[in-house]
Amino acid sequence: MSQPAQHMSIGMNILGFGAHAGAWRQAEVPANAYLDQQYYSNIARIAERGKLDAIFLADGPALLGDIAEHPAGRLEPTVLLTAVALATRHIGVIATASSTYNDPYNLARRFSSLDHISGGRAAWNVVTNAGDAAAQNFGLAGAPRHVDRYARADEFIDVTLKLWDSWEDDAVIGDARRGRFADPAKVHAINFVGEHFSVKGPLNLPRSPQGRPVLVQAGSSEGGKALGSRYADAIFTTQTTLVDGQAFYQEMKQRARQWGRNPEHLKIMPGLSTVIGSSEAEAQARFDELNAWYGEEGLINQVAARVGLAVSELELDAPLPWERIGPVAEFERGSHGFLEAQLNLARREHLTLRELSRRILVGHRLIVGTPEQVADTLEHWFRAGAADGFNIMPDMFPSGVEVFVDEVVPLLQKRGVFRHEYQGSTLRDHLGLPYPAGQYQRAAEAV
Amino acid sequence: MSQPAQHMSIGMNILGFGAHAGAWRQAEVPANAYLDQQYYSNIARIAERGKLDAIFLADGPALLGDIAEHPAGRLEPTVLLTAVALATRHIGVIATASSTYNDPYNLARRFSSLDHISGGRAAWNVVTNAGDAAAQNFGLAGAPRHVDRYARADEFIDVTLKLWDSWEDDAVIGDARRGRFADPAKVHAINFVGEHFSVKGPLNLPRSPQGRPVLVQAGSSEGGKALGSRYADAIFTTQTTLVDGQAFYQEMKQRARQWGRNPEHLKIMPGLSTVIGSSEAEAQARFDELNAWYGEEGLINQVAARVGLAVSELELDAPLPWERIGPVAEFERGSHGFLEAQLNLARREHLTLRELSRRILVGHRLIVGTPEQVADTLEHWFRAGAADGFNIMPDMFPSGVEVFVDEVVPLLQKRGVFRHEYQGSTLRDHLGLPYPAGQYQRAAEAV
Repeated sequence: MSQPAQHMSIGMNILGFGAHAGAWRQAEVPANAYLDQQYYSNIARIAERGKLDAIFLADGPALLGDIAEHPAGRLEPTVLLTAVALATRHIGVIATASSTYNDPYNLARRFSSLDHISGGRAAWNVVTNAGDAAAQNFGLAGAPRHVDRYARADEFIDVTLKLWDSWEDDAVIGDARRGRFADPAKVHAINFVGEHFSVKGPLNLPRSPQGRPVLVQAGSSEGGKALGSRYADAIFTTQTTLVDGQAFYQEMKQRARQWGRNPEHLKIMPGLSTVIGSSEAEAQARFDELNAWYGEEGLINQVAARVGLAVSELELDAPLPWERIGPVAEFERGSHGFLEAQLNLARREHLTLRELSRRILVGHRLIVGTPEQVADTLEHWFRAGAADGFNIMPDMFPSGVEVFVDEVVPLLQKRGVFRHEYQGSTLRDHLGLPYPAGQYQRAAEAV
Repeated sequence: MSQPAQHMSIGMNILGFGAHAGAWRQAEVPANAYLDQQYYSNIARIAERGKLDAIFLADGPALLGDIAEHPAGRLEPTVLLTAVALATRHIGVIATASSTYNDPYNLARRFSSLDHISGGRAAWNVVTNAGDAAAQNFGLAGAPRHVDRYARADEFIDVTLKLWDSWEDDAVIGDARRGRFADPAKVHAINFVGEHFSVKGPLNLPRSPQGRPVLVQAGSSEGGKALGSRYADAIFTTQTTLVDGQAFYQEMKQRARQWGRNPEHLKIMPGLSTVIGSSEAEAQARFDELNAWYGEEGLINQVAARVGLAVSELELDAPLPWERIGPVAEFERGSHGFLEAQLNLARREHLTLRELSRRILVGHRLIVGTPEQVADTLEHWFRAGAADGFNIMPDMFPSGVEVFVDEVVPLLQKRGVFRHEYQGSTLRDHLGLPYPAGQYQRAAEAV
């Protein structure tokens, strides 16, 4: 088993108004705040005050959800996070982008640009986009099959890494007086020819401050685990119990080893939704208040939609009707891992629908409790080998990030599991990842 | 003939270290400045001090040029201009992006995001990318034919405008307490099915502050003129003589009329490269100094490369060997209009190669002179119906923008042809363009 790092990493996941669907109704910020970079920059500055590793934006190229009742749409993450990076100095910025609906050259360049502009704080969260809505915005009737999306993603990442490496570290000479800009022998066409892409290169940007932007992956399917263990620097995951978390952690470290990688350079970061109060009762009251915006009917609707049953087939205070819920793959084209974890938990622990709703939020483990309790579970998972860090999803912004930074972070620092100050300047530094050697550089040195 | 606006518009074209190839050698800024958003933000702030309309970034998705001797590569413009927009308050930001090597949904969304984040200051300069280098980064052996690139561009713009219009202006209700986010009847699937694209929509962003980002086009081919007159809000162009400028201006206004448009809503903005000194001799000395970095040989090399002849076939103090220079289309796949204008001028005026190099820089008209002389030519072209505004390309940054803002702008203001203060908050306001009605909104109202 690999030695865990001394300090955990913490990412702050800015899911719209918060992870709880009721957050926008609570109106801590105006309804148009999600279109204002200052909303995100403010959250990032608070997170940076807490010395967090990164902020994270999920994404997909389609309008989803019931826009009559819920805010919908998102600013494009690389553009938005450029703004956020300039409003901050240390914290990393993780942007989601699709390998199914982008071209490697444009994407590699945009993330390299973000890495240059942020001084080495950029990361790409690779997603393959299961839904049909996105596909229909790109000339397809529906999403490609899971296996095809992951085959494309694998090749996409390969091309992207080669483009990011196409200028060697010392390719730029920059001698204006002598008129020597770069050493052409250190700038490489990649001449990639594959199943999905043919890309000549080189990238039209020198290597970025982190060598390459950090690569993040989420997805617990076999395809996702193979991809993540091979390429990712960090994996966002969804285990809801410690035992599952430990098993996933072990599996991914082992898979990384099988790819010939140092398993310490693959960081496992489970998600945790937080509803925090100064007492358990206060936390519960905050949660009740958020739930009240949609009522019991809303809870049932939400679960019914996810498990492919009619509302009439579900009861709030009864276990789920397992006999009527088939294999996840039959009703869910998307993130099997997320949903399976939820359902396995509910089945194993005989949870009622109401109980389930108090354990899981947006597909991730939920804690409703005090700062002590949140710190306890983070420390426990970290020390027990289930996590190198966490992807924190507060119920509501900005109060959810404020209480985390002001109340939870000091406890983690006191317990010696979280940094007091940033030690380096790049996201790789924060995550404890080495500067990656370029693949063309290595080849040259090996000769 | 349409009534010209009272004030001209001025865009500042940030071509790397300046329009002159010698600019980077002069080293006003370090050789890595072009990778630093602060370099661009500084130029934009100076331009904003001069109340200029916009800054502009050219672009292409390939590494071009001789990287041994010249800085090469560019930060991706939408990301970079997000940074620049946040460093400024008024000035517009015009980003170039390819209609050949992008998807409409992603591009529409990125520019809409930039428009939201900048508070209504974004513009898209549509280019089709003639060169093979870009094509080879996107799975093609070479660039598609001119006619195919423009057919795709036409459809691309059509889709993009529909996506930008897919939310009506008042679609968002934003009533958190009542849980009413948007009126779904005012958010439209576009259901576009064409030759090149099938896009369902709607965009996953509400309409942006300008309604739509401003659309800019450059290109004087028949395809370019048809496209620009149909869709563009502003056209960047390359005429080098007043007569040519007037003819192009008249033609484009007439074409706009034929599309059923108000010709005042199509702004014609010729390019002008500037080398400015407080006396003619000083300006000439500045130009000589920049030229000296490459010497007479450099001048010959530059022209030889552009006209498809060997260096040995050219002489610095003789007219070009016209009998050996065929139709532009035979040796230049790219911007025919630019090069044809250069060559027509040289042929008509019997210019030697050396003289030609003193009249034209980077494919645009050049003036080497005093602030008075620059103001004279701008005012003359503006009043004579050859221009609604200009795309200024200073020889070198930042000194070239500083002298323009500090010495030329006050003269234009004194002469009553340029604003003293910004009058509105969006780029459309600066350019004198109305807020565009959404096409779905119009349809609804017509019922």
